[in-house]
Amino acid sequence: MRDALKLIYEKQREMHILGGVISLLDWDQKTCMPRKGLEDRSIQISYLSKKLHDLLTSDELYRAVEFLDARKEDLSSIDRIVVERLKRDVEKARKIPSDFVERLSKLEAISYSSWVRARERSRFDLFLPYLSKLIELKMEYCNYKNLGGHPYNNLIDDYEEGMRYERLKPCFDFLKQKLKGLLDKLEGDFDLKIGLDIRDQERMSEIFLRQVSMDRERFRIDTSEHPFTARISTHDVRITTRYLKDKPLSSFFSTLHEVGHAIYELNLPKGRYRYTVISDAPSLGIHESQARFWENIVGRSRSFWKFFYPLVKKRIHGLGVEMEDIYRYVNQVRRSVIRVEADEVSYNLHIILRSEIESEIFEQRIDVRELREVWNEKMEELLGVRPKSDREGVLQDMHWSTGDFGYFPSYTIGNIYSAQLMYAMERDMGSFHALVEDGRFGDIKRWLFRKIHRFGRMFDAEELIRRGCGEGLNPERFIRYLEEKFV
Amino acid sequence: MRDALKLIYEKQREMHILGGVISLLDWDQKTCMPRKGLEDRSIQISYLSKKLHDLLTSDELYRAVEFLDARKEDLSSIDRIVVERLKRDVEKARKIPSDFVERLSKLEAISYSSWVRARERSRFDLFLPYLSKLIELKMEYCNYKNLGGHPYNNLIDDYEEGMRYERLKPCFDFLKQKLKGLLDKLEGDFDLKIGLDIRDQERMSEIFLRQVSMDRERFRIDTSEHPFTARISTHDVRITTRYLKDKPLSSFFSTLHEVGHAIYELNLPKGRYRYTVISDAPSLGIHESQARFWENIVGRSRSFWKFFYPLVKKRIHGLGVEMEDIYRYVNQVRRSVIRVEADEVSYNLHIILRSEIESEIFEQRIDVRELREVWNEKMEELLGVRPKSDREGVLQDMHWSTGDFGYFPSYTIGNIYSAQLMYAMERDMGSFHALVEDGRFGDIKRWLFRKIHRFGRMFDAEELIRRGCGEGLNPERFIRYLEEKFV
Repeated sequence: MRDALKLIYEKQREMHILGGVISLLDWDQKTCMPRKGLEDRSIQISYLSKKLHDLLTSDELYRAVEFLDARKEDLSSIDRIVVERLKRDVEKARKIPSDFVERLSKLEAISYSSWVRARERSRFDLFLPYLSKLIELKMEYCNYKNLGGHPYNNLIDDYEEGMRYERLKPCFDFLKQKLKGLLDKLEGDFDLKIGLDIRDQERMSEIFLRQVSMDRERFRIDTSEHPFTARISTHDVRITTRYLKDKPLSSFFSTLHEVGHAIYELNLPKGRYRYTVISDAPSLGIHESQARFWENIVGRSRSFWKFFYPLVKKRIHGLGVEMEDIYRYVNQVRRSVIRVEADEVSYNLHIILRSEIESEIFEQRIDVRELREVWNEKMEELLGVRPKSDREGVLQDMHWSTGDFGYFPSYTIGNIYSAQLMYAMERDMGSFHALVEDGRFGDIKRWLFRKIHRFGRMFDAEELIRRGCGEGLNPERFIRYLEEKFV
Repeated sequence: MRDALKLIYEKQREMHILGGVISLLDWDQKTCMPRKGLEDRSIQISYLSKKLHDLLTSDELYRAVEFLDARKEDLSSIDRIVVERLKRDVEKARKIPSDFVERLSKLEAISYSSWVRARERSRFDLFLPYLSKLIELKMEYCNYKNLGGHPYNNLIDDYEEGMRYERLKPCFDFLKQKLKGLLDKLEGDFDLKIGLDIRDQERMSEIFLRQVSMDRERFRIDTSEHPFTARISTHDVRITTRYLKDKPLSSFFSTLHEVGHAIYELNLPKGRYRYTVISDAPSLGIHESQARFWENIVGRSRSFWKFFYPLVKKRIHGLGVEMEDIYRYVNQVRRSVIRVEADEVSYNLHIILRSEIESEIFEQRIDVRELREVWNEKMEELLGVRPKSDREGVLQDMHWSTGDFGYFPSYTIGNIYSAQLMYAMERDMGSFHALVEDGRFGDIKRWLFRKIHRFGRMFDAEELIRRGCGEGLNPERFIRYLEEKFV
């Protein structure tokens, strides 16, 4: 038993090392790498990814895990948690044949570039053959995984372990109806001229980073085309943002979003859990909830701007706008065809559109060749607007081109959880808005650590939320949050 | 045979991938990494280094190489070159037991930090126990390697494959005598106030990078505490420099030096050689010759400043010095105790000092406990100055602390080769100084590519120089160069 334990900890440690190195290769590709390094970079990443997959699916690890699982009662509670979670990961990964993994990842690589080209020319037909093939392979994938119930479950589970479409569907239907009503009521338009050049935008992000006490010896911020967070190792987490001249607050909200991810990553379980499968998020939805919490629940609240505006005003001259103007500007509700530009009210309608389409694709109720029309009609139905081109419509997101079907629901799950966290925080610490207005971000971070971060993957996502907030996924909380804020 | 060939190319490709990834981990550590990432970074690097070493020493690879080597006459000329070189690498690596490799690298890691501490406090006695232990292990290493002749050969050969101390000693003795004479004759002092703030220093480097047409899609420049060059992959080579307020030209000469390394790396053999042991430098001395060529032979020549000064003057106002002043300033000959600050004349005396000490250590003619005194006395003898402290004396270089005994001679070999390259260029293209004064750096780069870069490791270093310059290592060329320039 000692040997088996030693082996599983050693293998998990190796997986952690490789995972961190792959993160660095990816981070570097997006922030630093000279353009012509791309070909070799793909080779480096896929080589190490293959090694990582081989480790997870090796017979040696499988045998050790099965051996330990059969002797669970003799394990310490920590070892038991690790063994149970690892067993699930190993078993799931071993269901998928390695030659299939290779075929799929090759297809994803070429599909991504075909999507880039198709999007540039706004021509869905150029992407269609790759998309059809991807869907075909993903259906094969669902057959291997074979979780039962709706076929879409097999895909959702990759990002939101334990979540099922049967549970999600009524939540999304409820949201759809409520959000359409809110959108009709709140729609408006408000333009604002904000005097922030790129240097000022950087300064504004810096002020925020200081307020949330990001430790520069464990964290850094850079720029990249699309903002993201990378964990390179336990004490090395990095975010990126982008500074746009014509969207002066976009970089700031990106920073808030990514900082939410980064605080989470920096607070994951350490000690004996440090190099295990436990030191990770239980789902993408939980991860997203942390980002949305700082970006929206905190960052788009009036109380935040009451606190933050004077700090900005003092350091950035020529801002030329009042606190209340900023608040209105960052909270305007609008019908837009583009997901990433959507406000808090309409955003989840974009997600519901994608989730419904994906679920129908994998029920084989949609002919992919008609996807453009399906998309446009659903957009009209849900948001009351119609894309003028493929670029603004069915080609707007890269997710499908990289094989990420089943990913979108996590965004909405994250939004719902973020509102639940706010109410639970209020239950434990009194008025949330008083906390924010006083800039007591340390208290907020500590609460998130105690209730969410320190557990890593010890529980499934919904169980974690149930323990922290007293209830599982509850879309009513999110609607209540929007109503209290906007109505 | 086809299988064996496939295997050796595949394994070399894997080694190339790992080598590139390790370079990135190291580059990132020195340029970007948040400080507290260090512990995990060391784990990442040593994990992948172990994998790399395992690949090189595996029985599978060894058997394939031996099999192919026994059938050499049936191989294509390219495959034969690859097999012969790989065979040497494999056989050398397999002479060293893996547990010894691990013991040594652990000792090197802690010795480095002990050196840092000892140097900070300028106390050799704090470093002494580690140094003694390192020397002991390195003697064990010499026994494993067992090349014959002077024991120091085993160490020199790690950096300067094929070179022997018996060959080097008379060259160094010749240089020593000549350089001491030149130093007596040329010593002088000349101070200059140059108006270059950090932004100007960057601008100056940029002007140079454009003049030598560095391709920004394959190359980048950053800052780090100590300048270095990293090859991440075939089309991704990076250099660093450092901008110092009180040494306004230091960053510029660092850039020239590292650019020399980078041009070489970017021009190494591709095609079928791309992921093989051939796509590398045959020795550190050759690599160094490329750096010294651009830094000194080009960058410290009067013809270079005739060309470059007007470009700088045009873009940097407030420079406040004349061309001839800069030329004099960057060529002043001085007796200094510090190697990295030495001029072209005295620099090699610093190297000869270290080489003599190292050779005597491994002949066991020096008691390490007396190294401080040995150092100081040799310094007095060779350079006529005496260090005031350990920090400025025996503790000034980090090489020993990382186990790099036998490394120093490559610096002087590089300096000698760089002068030989200049005269060979002159033989083929007419006046070298006319080329430089006209800024015909493209012609110079092409010549270096044709004579040196494109061969990679096809030949041993001295053979490569013999083919390109018509003669092997010849210190007289270097002395002639100095005399023509300074006397």
